[in-house]
Amino acid sequence: VPVTTIAFAGMEGALAHAAVRGLPAAEHASLLPLPNVTSTIDAVRTGRADAALVPLENSVEGAVAATLDELANSAALVIREETYLSVSFGLMGRPGTVLANVSSVAAPTHVEAQVRRWLIDTLPTARVALVASTVAAVQAVADGECDAGVGAVFTSMLNGLDILAHDIAGTPPAVTRFVLLSRPMPPPERTGNDLTTLVAFLREDHYGDALLEILIEFGTRGINLTRIESRPTKNRIGDYCFSIDCEGHVDDARVGDAVAALRRVCADVRYLGSYPRQSGLQGPLPPGRSDSDFAESRSWLANIRESGTSQI
Amino acid sequence: VPVTTIAFAGMEGALAHAAVRGLPAAEHASLLPLPNVTSTIDAVRTGRADAALVPLENSVEGAVAATLDELANSAALVIREETYLSVSFGLMGRPGTVLANVSSVAAPTHVEAQVRRWLIDTLPTARVALVASTVAAVQAVADGECDAGVGAVFTSMLNGLDILAHDIAGTPPAVTRFVLLSRPMPPPERTGNDLTTLVAFLREDHYGDALLEILIEFGTRGINLTRIESRPTKNRIGDYCFSIDCEGHVDDARVGDAVAALRRVCADVRYLGSYPRQSGLQGPLPPGRSDSDFAESRSWLANIRESGTSQI
Amino acid sequence: VPVTTIAFAGMEGALAHAAVRGLPAAEHASLLPLPNVTSTIDAVRTGRADAALVPLENSVEGAVAATLDELANSAALVIREETYLSVSFGLMGRPGTVLANVSSVAAPTHVEAQVRRWLIDTLPTARVALVASTVAAVQAVADGECDAGVGAVFTSMLNGLDILAHDIAGTPPAVTRFVLLSRPMPPPERTGNDLTTLVAFLREDHYGDALLEILIEFGTRGINLTRIESRPTKNRIGDYCFSIDCEGHVDDARVGDAVAALRRVCADVRYLGSYPRQSGLQGPLPPGRSDSDFAESRSWLANIRESGTSQI
Amino acid sequence: VPVTTIAFAGMEGALAHAAVRGLPAAEHASLLPLPNVTSTIDAVRTGRADAALVPLENSVEGAVAATLDELANSAALVIREETYLSVSFGLMGRPGTVLANVSSVAAPTHVEAQVRRWLIDTLPTARVALVASTVAAVQAVADGECDAGVGAVFTSMLNGLDILAHDIAGTPPAVTRFVLLSRPMPPPERTGNDLTTLVAFLREDHYGDALLEILIEFGTRGINLTRIESRPTKNRIGDYCFSIDCEGHVDDARVGDAVAALRRVCADVRYLGSYPRQSGLQGPLPPGRSDSDFAESRSWLANIRESGTSQI
Repeated sequence: VPVTTIAFAGMEGALAHAAVRGLPAAEHASLLPLPNVTSTIDAVRTGRADAALVPLENSVEGAVAATLDELANSAALVIREETYLSVSFGLMGRPGTVLANVSSVAAPTHVEAQVRRWLIDTLPTARVALVASTVAAVQAVADGECDAGVGAVFTSMLNGLDILAHDIAGTPPAVTRFVLLSRPMPPPERTGNDLTTLVAFLREDHYGDALLEILIEFGTRGINLTRIESRPTKNRIGDYCFSIDCEGHVDDARVGDAVAALRRVCADVRYLGSYPRQSGLQGPLPPGRSDSDFAESRSWLANIRESGTSQI
Repeated sequence: VPVTTIAFAGMEGALAHAAVRGLPAAEHASLLPLPNVTSTIDAVRTGRADAALVPLENSVEGAVAATLDELANSAALVIREETYLSVSFGLMGRPGTVLANVSSVAAPTHVEAQVRRWLIDTLPTARVALVASTVAAVQAVADGECDAGVGAVFTSMLNGLDILAHDIAGTPPAVTRFVLLSRPMPPPERTGNDLTTLVAFLREDHYGDALLEILIEFGTRGINLTRIESRPTKNRIGDYCFSIDCEGHVDDARVGDAVAALRRVCADVRYLGSYPRQSGLQGPLPPGRSDSDFAESRSWLANIRESGTSQI
Repeated sequence: VPVTTIAFAGMEGALAHAAVRGLPAAEHASLLPLPNVTSTIDAVRTGRADAALVPLENSVEGAVAATLDELANSAALVIREETYLSVSFGLMGRPGTVLANVSSVAAPTHVEAQVRRWLIDTLPTARVALVASTVAAVQAVADGECDAGVGAVFTSMLNGLDILAHDIAGTPPAVTRFVLLSRPMPPPERTGNDLTTLVAFLREDHYGDALLEILIEFGTRGINLTRIESRPTKNRIGDYCFSIDCEGHVDDARVGDAVAALRRVCADVRYLGSYPRQSGLQGPLPPGRSDSDFAESRSWLANIRESGTSQI
Repeated sequence: VPVTTIAFAGMEGALAHAAVRGLPAAEHASLLPLPNVTSTIDAVRTGRADAALVPLENSVEGAVAATLDELANSAALVIREETYLSVSFGLMGRPGTVLANVSSVAAPTHVEAQVRRWLIDTLPTARVALVASTVAAVQAVADGECDAGVGAVFTSMLNGLDILAHDIAGTPPAVTRFVLLSRPMPPPERTGNDLTTLVAFLREDHYGDALLEILIEFGTRGINLTRIESRPTKNRIGDYCFSIDCEGHVDDARVGDAVAALRRVCADVRYLGSYPRQSGLQGPLPPGRSDSDFAESRSWLANIRESGTSQI
């Protein structure tokens, strides 16, 4: 299925723009910038775009709530790909600006946490204006609304601004993980190093026990988790679901078996796609968890049920 | 399949004889008494008998090693039925015998443990002659080889002996669980209150962990165990298998799924039959473990794999 | 220790202002409004305030990242109290404003997610200006910078604005959980219905297994969890810690024992306080988990070690 | 405490006699042969002997029920030492006896299971007379009561009998584990490679779950089990306790902590001694389970409770 329109959250020159341009699928696609994650995802749901690239997690802030919540609720979408972008943030100002004179700083909402500590230490009296994106921050500086703005260093040259300070988000540079979403379709072929994303809705309030139950279903099948986030289910504090990435592909016997087991022990399970993993390698499987082990044990069971014995 | 010859370990008048006569299947069968468990089981393997009734466990002594080991090794057999027999043991002597004068006691090997404490307390100086069966104990008394013999109270009248002491095995009376074995054949229909018997051979030496793994496979599927025995695998101390009874029938989805999972995590699994339970009632299933839950989760998974989404 | 200055994140009239005024401790305290969570927490660390009231989680957005991260890192603080505030959000405009004419909306960053869906559905073409607080949103409307602003309904009357739409954050109203922080001091007395907050830093990357290990330490001691959040440790994607609330008080034997066990199995554990629980009731303890059970088992063990036997 | 009288089950020349003579403690002790395990153990309880050497398990038969049950019930004893004896069994006859003419065989009860298969295959028509010990088997042959007897090969030369067949118990030779029991006294010093023996009585009938709970208490503390046996509690079928050997010494912090935890989750726990391990080596401890880890975590907890913070 050739993708022809890819929506992304941000404007031209923004972080997401750099991420989307790195995708092979984007080479022959038209790119559609949209103001935020929700509208970007909606563009796929309504058919205005064929795919959407949105941030899922960040090495500093953790999960991107808007993305997780859109995926867990409303019409179903699936993750087709993941991609990582490492960004070094700096403070930018109009040419001639001196750090000591900065009294107002435009900071994008999703970046502010990463630079908060630096701003409080370095510019304790500066007013921080939260803006919607790194592009908006640059614009606020260019327009003279703020003395300085927080942005990805690579964008400063596009705008004729000076870099007043480098690496203000701390070391190491923040890494953002983006996912490419589409309307439901069968997953890409297995590569042997895949991830599967799920949302598991808990059946009950005691979610220490419910979470234990979920982890055991993965653990007994030799499946490692690479991400787990609790999310409120939009009802009340204490009603949670878990957003999960696990190693393997839904077409792997052990992963399918675990997903079906979750279906039985959870109130609900939403499958959000299997796709090639871009960061890290799947470890060796413990004995007895390969596809052929599952196939053998099932035909062995079928034979017991028919013949009445396990001894051939 | 009408059973026509049923072997049992013991002679006419022995405990096993009483047990076998209580079986509906025995009504039109010829009964074949044999000297011990091994030869009784062999009679089925060689075709000399169609079924064999042997003791599996006893409320005092625990597992009957000979039965467990024959089932775990050699040619495959299956359990068709279980039955329980409660026996009160007494000390029997020739008419006129006085307890104070008893200086030798014939005790069947498999009963001796139950009456050992009583004998040591009551007849501390008496010589105990271990004999092969309760019938042999009675015979040893009748023949004058011993002053008294330990036997089931119900057999004394058959032999013209006096009861010198009642209930010498302590309170409550010992209960023996017998199983009826046959060559492999499909199990009887499910009744909703069945047991399944298995032997699980461990893959590795650390069997605290291996046993944990086995218990979790049952536990996550809501299957209660009613018996678990570790048995040496006839190699060396420390090499063990586990003999297990669990609630449910191999045709139950959850039981079949657990048995197939054991097949993957264990070095080997031997299935020994599913049959109606005669003692105790299966508790309510936790949610998500019924046959329809398994069927639903599997078709749900098949749909995900085909369509790429869990949301219909 | 009487609290004399309580910092809170927000201005007078803001959500946090309403929350802080509901605290008994605030009755005789001076209140110090500060622009954001980080500076509010810093005020306690530097001694400028004696306590700080900050949001910890929200029934819609989940965890408040800034609060969790400040508690997990930098100088130690403890939670003294928790309090809940339920807020109904509305859209406010200058008198005479008509919904159909609204083309720009000021929305506080932390509220925007809750009203995002309503704004996209109702005002799809409106520009959304993210501002730092509900007070700033109201101000932006009063100043004419935006046509409408999102805020707590209770603040509209303070500002002479009209309510253009009620309950725009969906039903039920969002509940925010605030915590009162202080510099370290011994916890308040046990009440029998307490919570304890911890951060557990994982020893290894395979955090499915590490999380399982943590949950088991709570589970075996009969301790229910009421919140668990994975958080990046500010190093790289995949390096996580868990922020945890559990039932009970660190002075409860079972809680202390679990916390000490976590200390052994985790890379690090940070204790963040025990305090009376304001929402929900602790369930009955399973047998063997009371303080007296712990005391009895320890003196029993000491006696074994001294005498060489468990039988008195 | 110098041991001066050691009881053992068997007569001079019997298997247990060989085992007891191998004990360093036996060098200056007088040895007291007694007819069976129960009377041997009673000799220690009554003070007639200072110690008793009895078999605990056998690589073919598994647990020795009489020993386990005596240890689990009645007055408390402790295990001071373990020792292993490997025995090759043969068939012995009076000089001139030919295997083909053997029609009666005297077999000790506790050995019969090991040679049963050989006897059925080689002497299918021979009558088997169960006798109380290997010494009694030899005596029955010498007295002409049986044509042949089953015994340890090493005893034949003592009695002037011929070996009619070697290694009839199958390969490899059976190994018996003996334990030296005494009245309660503090355990020997830790060696770094010790075992601890316990009996855990279950609180409830669902012993799949109860056993899981027990295994988890060991597993979370990094303690490997080397033996676990379910035993009926002498009440009724289904009421079980578990006889357990675990790696480590009750003076090890992790073992003491696990034993105290069992005390809380079980109906009762009986401690039966810590002693140097003679077979196998303890594996490396997982991180966080050493004595110093336990000491550190406890003083860390004490500091939290006093100061209100984990951060020094």
